[in-house]
Amino acid sequence: MADKSEKTKARLPRGFADRSAEDIRAVEKMMTTIRSVYELYGFEPADQPLIEYTDALGKFLPDQDRPNEGVFSFQDDDDQWLSLRYDLTAPTARFVAENYERLPKPYRSYRSGWVFRNEKPGPGRFRQFMQFDADTIGTPGVAADAEMAMMMADVMEALGIKRGDYVIRVNNRKVLDGVLEAIGLGGDDNVGRRLTVLRAIDKLDKLGPEGVRLLLGPGRWDGGKEGEGDFAKGAGLNDGQAEAVLRATARNTQAGQDSSVSTNAVYQEGVGELSTIEALVRAAGYAEDRIAMDRSVVRGLEYYTGPVFEAELLAEIPNEDGQIVRFGSVGGGGRYDGLVSRFRGEPVPATGFSIGVSRLMTALKNLGKLDSADVIAPVVVLVMDRDTDSLGRYQKMVSELRAAGIRSEMYLGGAGMKAQLKYADRRGCPVAIIQGGDERAKGELQIKDLIEGARMSAEISDNAEWRAARPAQVTVAESELVAEVKKILAAQAADRAKGGA
Amino acid sequence: MADKSEKTKARLPRGFADRSAEDIRAVEKMMTTIRSVYELYGFEPADQPLIEYTDALGKFLPDQDRPNEGVFSFQDDDDQWLSLRYDLTAPTARFVAENYERLPKPYRSYRSGWVFRNEKPGPGRFRQFMQFDADTIGTPGVAADAEMAMMMADVMEALGIKRGDYVIRVNNRKVLDGVLEAIGLGGDDNVGRRLTVLRAIDKLDKLGPEGVRLLLGPGRWDGGKEGEGDFAKGAGLNDGQAEAVLRATARNTQAGQDSSVSTNAVYQEGVGELSTIEALVRAAGYAEDRIAMDRSVVRGLEYYTGPVFEAELLAEIPNEDGQIVRFGSVGGGGRYDGLVSRFRGEPVPATGFSIGVSRLMTALKNLGKLDSADVIAPVVVLVMDRDTDSLGRYQKMVSELRAAGIRSEMYLGGAGMKAQLKYADRRGCPVAIIQGGDERAKGELQIKDLIEGARMSAEISDNAEWRAARPAQVTVAESELVAEVKKILAAQAADRAKGGA
Repeated sequence: MADKSEKTKARLPRGFADRSAEDIRAVEKMMTTIRSVYELYGFEPADQPLIEYTDALGKFLPDQDRPNEGVFSFQDDDDQWLSLRYDLTAPTARFVAENYERLPKPYRSYRSGWVFRNEKPGPGRFRQFMQFDADTIGTPGVAADAEMAMMMADVMEALGIKRGDYVIRVNNRKVLDGVLEAIGLGGDDNVGRRLTVLRAIDKLDKLGPEGVRLLLGPGRWDGGKEGEGDFAKGAGLNDGQAEAVLRATARNTQAGQDSSVSTNAVYQEGVGELSTIEALVRAAGYAEDRIAMDRSVVRGLEYYTGPVFEAELLAEIPNEDGQIVRFGSVGGGGRYDGLVSRFRGEPVPATGFSIGVSRLMTALKNLGKLDSADVIAPVVVLVMDRDTDSLGRYQKMVSELRAAGIRSEMYLGGAGMKAQLKYADRRGCPVAIIQGGDERAKGELQIKDLIEGARMSAEISDNAEWRAARPAQVTVAESELVAEVKKILAAQAADRAKGGA
Repeated sequence: MADKSEKTKARLPRGFADRSAEDIRAVEKMMTTIRSVYELYGFEPADQPLIEYTDALGKFLPDQDRPNEGVFSFQDDDDQWLSLRYDLTAPTARFVAENYERLPKPYRSYRSGWVFRNEKPGPGRFRQFMQFDADTIGTPGVAADAEMAMMMADVMEALGIKRGDYVIRVNNRKVLDGVLEAIGLGGDDNVGRRLTVLRAIDKLDKLGPEGVRLLLGPGRWDGGKEGEGDFAKGAGLNDGQAEAVLRATARNTQAGQDSSVSTNAVYQEGVGELSTIEALVRAAGYAEDRIAMDRSVVRGLEYYTGPVFEAELLAEIPNEDGQIVRFGSVGGGGRYDGLVSRFRGEPVPATGFSIGVSRLMTALKNLGKLDSADVIAPVVVLVMDRDTDSLGRYQKMVSELRAAGIRSEMYLGGAGMKAQLKYADRRGCPVAIIQGGDERAKGELQIKDLIEGARMSAEISDNAEWRAARPAQVTVAESELVAEVKKILAAQAADRAKGGA
């Protein structure tokens, strides 16, 4: 096994991440807060497996040539295709369709978990990431959509994001659908072009109206200039059509459409639903600084059929390159009336919202809202003698500390004093317990305050002085162990509270 | 979409499970407790992705014919094989090997998550299940193993399992390895036969010594009699060899081996390590009723190299068929000195423990240790008028309740009063708020205590009497909403505390 020539290379697969203890704790804290808001709104926890039949996931059906397009897929031993879920919405739709009769309707549920995309990984683009969703299934009323928007606004504030530092933007897919119908892009024949339009509008923030105009028309070079990067084929709209689409999706513009658009029934329905949502959220006390109606929000997923939402952080945060930028979207969602229906053969309207957990955590960390200073590293009992009797005595000290609720451990490494103190330093241990032969004979032990020790070490430049002082160390009777450690930990906590070391 | 002829069938894949809200809450609660014990012991959270390179997982390397043997595997677009992890230990070994230099040593970590087995599903046998592990990596000393055993005993008690209702059994793989070497089954040539022996011994509880004796010798028919079920080929030991193995693995027997076994160096090392572990746990105050040395524990996984553990629930619990049975194993682990080393080309000793989360939860539920009675269903504001103004008013009531921390929701379904009360009943809502036109005109609303209502409904047989009484309903001014709901919820809580309705 220890032959170097045969060893396997330890490597993380591309596009996947190991998480640090700090990140895990931060996510845990954040998710507890989100969960409490979802619960307050009457939602119940739900959980589906990570694997579904590929056909149940819809959308990304594998074709014979490329079964892995977009999703991770594999064939079961009965030849059926299985896939790792690419979001939480498709499995939710499958679950609700399968258990519809026995669920309360509307069915309010929330769920969190890993989702997978079989895509080319890049910086900040992972092939496994976590989402935290809430869904209301079984009601066509936009009151359910209004509630989603309000809940997301409450989530942001519960996480400590100040009012004005975030906004929930709301639009309605029917507004754009109506415009597309009015300009002659309705019907089944134009599904592909409509999707191209949708994805073009979704890039408004990134490309601006002129870039999007190219994508609506003939197409656009990725690099921004002819011949630079790949060429993305456009939707092929003429100037008048592109103009109508751009006018309909301009932020905060509700006028300016000619009568062929403004009399379109789908368009009118969309505009009407938006007004209802606006009235409902305002009545509940959510002003425009929290929930804004915004015609530029479309969302890239094709399955949305009505209201769509986006949670945006307005706070300006340093990005990976140190530039100060508006953080942008941390989640979104919308009404997906077709997803459950495709299993049921009857209308099952539904709406939901999805939070990108890693992205939101990154934002909160940057905003200083995820503090893990309340986690204290363990007290470490050093091992001076390694015979079984001595180890038993050290183990007993640790047991006493743990019984008193003090996080602690016996040093389990193999090396000498230097390695032990290095270990304590690396872990950030607050206290070390030492009992050598001399102390044992006297029934005593030494307790080192490592935090105070480090502070004094930084302040006292003269080594001789430091050795002489030794103020961060006390010798006490064995029976005083727990009481003395508690005293030191309390003093350290008081220092932290004062903003000290 | 709503065409029945085209609809997709909604079906959960075989061997996977949707989890109920109750189970999710129970697991959450249980894992919070386990985590607190792991933290108390100085372990830090860690998390690896669910997908690894297949070769990094070791053991189940896909052969060309059957790449999916035992694990779910798929080829990446660069032709490398990826697999879903089948346990948490292999990814941990990969992570530690890859990041060895920067980790504190020994490295104490804990992790929970889903693991996958591409096996034939059966009753209670799932292809996705959750584990909750702790590992100490980088120390050869059995003090680390002793600590694992103590930590698991503490986990059991923290979960409310009484002393005497569980035991952590400890053995050492070297004891069996020494016996096998002494009876001529050492060396690389006998790897396969040793594994067969291991798996046979792992079935001692199920088959008893006579069944195991067959598996150690010529083999055994699954059905117990010749010709019944499949024939499992045995390890081919002769009677004397089988007897030596059975003697070495008899529960609580430490004597009776002839000198060729008892003088074997590996055997002696195993026995010595067991004594050290026993001394350490006794010194720390863990008596035999919590941690027992037990030669019958071997664990089925081949990668263990030293001490092995098993957490067993002794409590007798009704099984799926209603029979009262000893619940059995809820977790186990051991020392796996080879797993990290195979990446590093240098010895990296390690030990760990894994809890089977679903299985432990099932046990705790049966023992009545997972109570979710503290989760209260939402207060529901009924919808009497459906115009936007009225919806806005109901929404505002809900917002006020939520602002006061009261879990609540507006009814979002489409139908009449009957459907609303059925919904409230199905959810178990404690309180319903009603405001029709009459009440609105007077600035009032009705508050129904649904719990008290159900109780009275059960006790009062006469319908006229019930209608006349209506004691579980009050009419209050709109401004009294929050105060009155709080009063009712408090009264219901007091009833529950008294063991009432």
